[in-house]
Amino acid sequence: MEELTISNRMSGLNPSAIREILKVTTNSNVISFAAGNPAEETFPVSELKELAVELFQKHGFMALQYGLTEGYAPLIEQIRLRLREKYAIGRSMDKVMILSGGQQGLDLSAKCLLNEGDTVLCEAYSFIGALNTFRSYGARPVGIPMDEEGMDPDALELALRREKNVRLIYTIPTFQNPMGVTMSFARRKRIYELAVRYNVMILEDSPYFELRYSGSYVPAIKTLDETGHVIYVGSFSKVISPGLRVGFLCTRSDLVSKLVVAKQGADVQTPLLTQMLVSSYLERYDLDAHIEDCRALYKEKRDRMISRMEACFPDPATFTRPAGGLFLWCEIPENISGTAFCKAAGERGVVCVPGGTFHPSGDLKSPCFRLNYSMPSLKQIDQGIDILADCLSAILP
Amino acid sequence: MEELTISNRMSGLNPSAIREILKVTTNSNVISFAAGNPAEETFPVSELKELAVELFQKHGFMALQYGLTEGYAPLIEQIRLRLREKYAIGRSMDKVMILSGGQQGLDLSAKCLLNEGDTVLCEAYSFIGALNTFRSYGARPVGIPMDEEGMDPDALELALRREKNVRLIYTIPTFQNPMGVTMSFARRKRIYELAVRYNVMILEDSPYFELRYSGSYVPAIKTLDETGHVIYVGSFSKVISPGLRVGFLCTRSDLVSKLVVAKQGADVQTPLLTQMLVSSYLERYDLDAHIEDCRALYKEKRDRMISRMEACFPDPATFTRPAGGLFLWCEIPENISGTAFCKAAGERGVVCVPGGTFHPSGDLKSPCFRLNYSMPSLKQIDQGIDILADCLSAILP
Repeated sequence: MEELTISNRMSGLNPSAIREILKVTTNSNVISFAAGNPAEETFPVSELKELAVELFQKHGFMALQYGLTEGYAPLIEQIRLRLREKYAIGRSMDKVMILSGGQQGLDLSAKCLLNEGDTVLCEAYSFIGALNTFRSYGARPVGIPMDEEGMDPDALELALRREKNVRLIYTIPTFQNPMGVTMSFARRKRIYELAVRYNVMILEDSPYFELRYSGSYVPAIKTLDETGHVIYVGSFSKVISPGLRVGFLCTRSDLVSKLVVAKQGADVQTPLLTQMLVSSYLERYDLDAHIEDCRALYKEKRDRMISRMEACFPDPATFTRPAGGLFLWCEIPENISGTAFCKAAGERGVVCVPGGTFHPSGDLKSPCFRLNYSMPSLKQIDQGIDILADCLSAILP
Repeated sequence: MEELTISNRMSGLNPSAIREILKVTTNSNVISFAAGNPAEETFPVSELKELAVELFQKHGFMALQYGLTEGYAPLIEQIRLRLREKYAIGRSMDKVMILSGGQQGLDLSAKCLLNEGDTVLCEAYSFIGALNTFRSYGARPVGIPMDEEGMDPDALELALRREKNVRLIYTIPTFQNPMGVTMSFARRKRIYELAVRYNVMILEDSPYFELRYSGSYVPAIKTLDETGHVIYVGSFSKVISPGLRVGFLCTRSDLVSKLVVAKQGADVQTPLLTQMLVSSYLERYDLDAHIEDCRALYKEKRDRMISRMEACFPDPATFTRPAGGLFLWCEIPENISGTAFCKAAGERGVVCVPGGTFHPSGDLKSPCFRLNYSMPSLKQIDQGIDILADCLSAILP
């Protein structure tokens, strides 16, 4: 065969390290802290089964036919109301559209807003799926340092002045992936003001924000948006099911029109069956009560992981104490590469993701790694953290 | 609000005229020949309901969790075997991956193969969803004339020599959308040989090929592919359900690896629920018997539309007699624009799509239009064709 010539935008991109790691961790002896999966025990399987039966009985033909690209109208309205009434997200200038998972919101936004060579400012470290999507449109992600309040606004402003063709600020303000940090409300205000002043759009990615286990609620950046500078992306993946692939976004309606054109070319529409299942679930059941159950489960797991780490991790390792979400972040001394550490841990049967995977500039030596606590059992958390502590002690001076 | 700046690749793209037309035709008094929808009465609603119940009972947690980007392994294997054994598609160099509908195969292929400014050679006229996808990556579709055997290979070769940076030949060889033409096997061979000689990939889009109502089976271009020059895209949209959004492609495995990376960024994966439903359907039921039923239904509709057109369309209008698929194509005298004609017909309550919509160069005046016969009832076909004949008589000299 002739050698294959891949487009410039895609030729440098490789499979997500995480999804590749996940292929390995189907081995049941392995303790995986690598995934970003919600726990299966939270999935409302029997509720969805009943709803599916009813749906096929009452609206089977509609569920199997083509539908509108922007999404199933009743679901759009349910989401619009929920966002507006519960979270003060969305104004009259805004519209909601349905996505095939939150990831599609990042993809369509990048496609509609970024030219080749444009810069996207994002948290360092950030979600690999977003970074790769920006790269796949020829854009360049540039990392802004974070502290315990989130993205540093002074560094952000410097970058807004210094970097060329900045078109987008990408942020996961609440329970950030991978670092578990939540941006303070004061920071959200400053970052929104900077976006307005420099006329740059903010892509606010918010898949985890309803999974809070402690601390108090911080309103979304989108709640501040009077000027049409924020695209808010949400998802049912972490609170109902990721396998259904139903997400949504809310932003100014002229941008939604363009995103709908992009979605026509991407996948025509999200399956009506999965949209209608989510819509029936929202109508019939109390999502907030279900989220309370998820929170209780994940809080126990988070607390268990943190207390075990506090008890047995050697001193030079530091880690975040996230108030919610699925991840925490561990930093180790500068001279130890996260990749080397994760390799050593993997050989002892514990899988975690090297921090460098999430670095906007792709620095694989970063001395840090990400741990997920939603998937493993309490027992696995105990065993896995003990092994990681052993590995750290062995590797540390 | 500040004016929105859309990326160069998307700024010129507007909503698909067809999907916009479809929004209008939800009015039940309108007779629509505009859609590309399969007939609802072909959807196996009760079978899928039973399968969904079983699926939630036995594999509910798996169906709702994340899965591999390349697709649900048993479904990949079912498709691989069906393509190989029934249609001689796929060699050892090839792999199958699952798509969120066939459209996603066009999108991912364009993303991985086309640079901005590249040329895609395609049939004139061609599928608007494909043309817009190529445009959305900054590529330029160039139309190759067709005759009753499909794309003209001499014109294709001229274009391969003349046009700059030709990276892709896009074709719907069987029951082409919009023209209803099927490419002869001799043509398929010549076009494949040209692709090899000029080292250009062929994107073979084949959503309709199992819906044959007359004439004899013509093997796919992919059956000839010994050199890894063909991407074969298929779908269950026209033979099971479009709303499920389950498609697939088959091509050389190194390209599949890259397409999987692109899919990670696009939507992570196709919903496991819909993939597993299709997989169970293929396992439990006889898809070929179901396709026979679809064929019988559509054959009757096609025959009805053609005989009615033969009986009452005025002479200067000519039209194709497709051997399968969902569409036929009508040409009217040069001095009448298809857009003006469709507007006049729309005012009489019959909707069809102006030919110009499908022109690679976007010439909206083209004297032609597309008719769909899978959606309307026999009665609607009779009434609608009579009205179109009236409109034609009124507009013709």
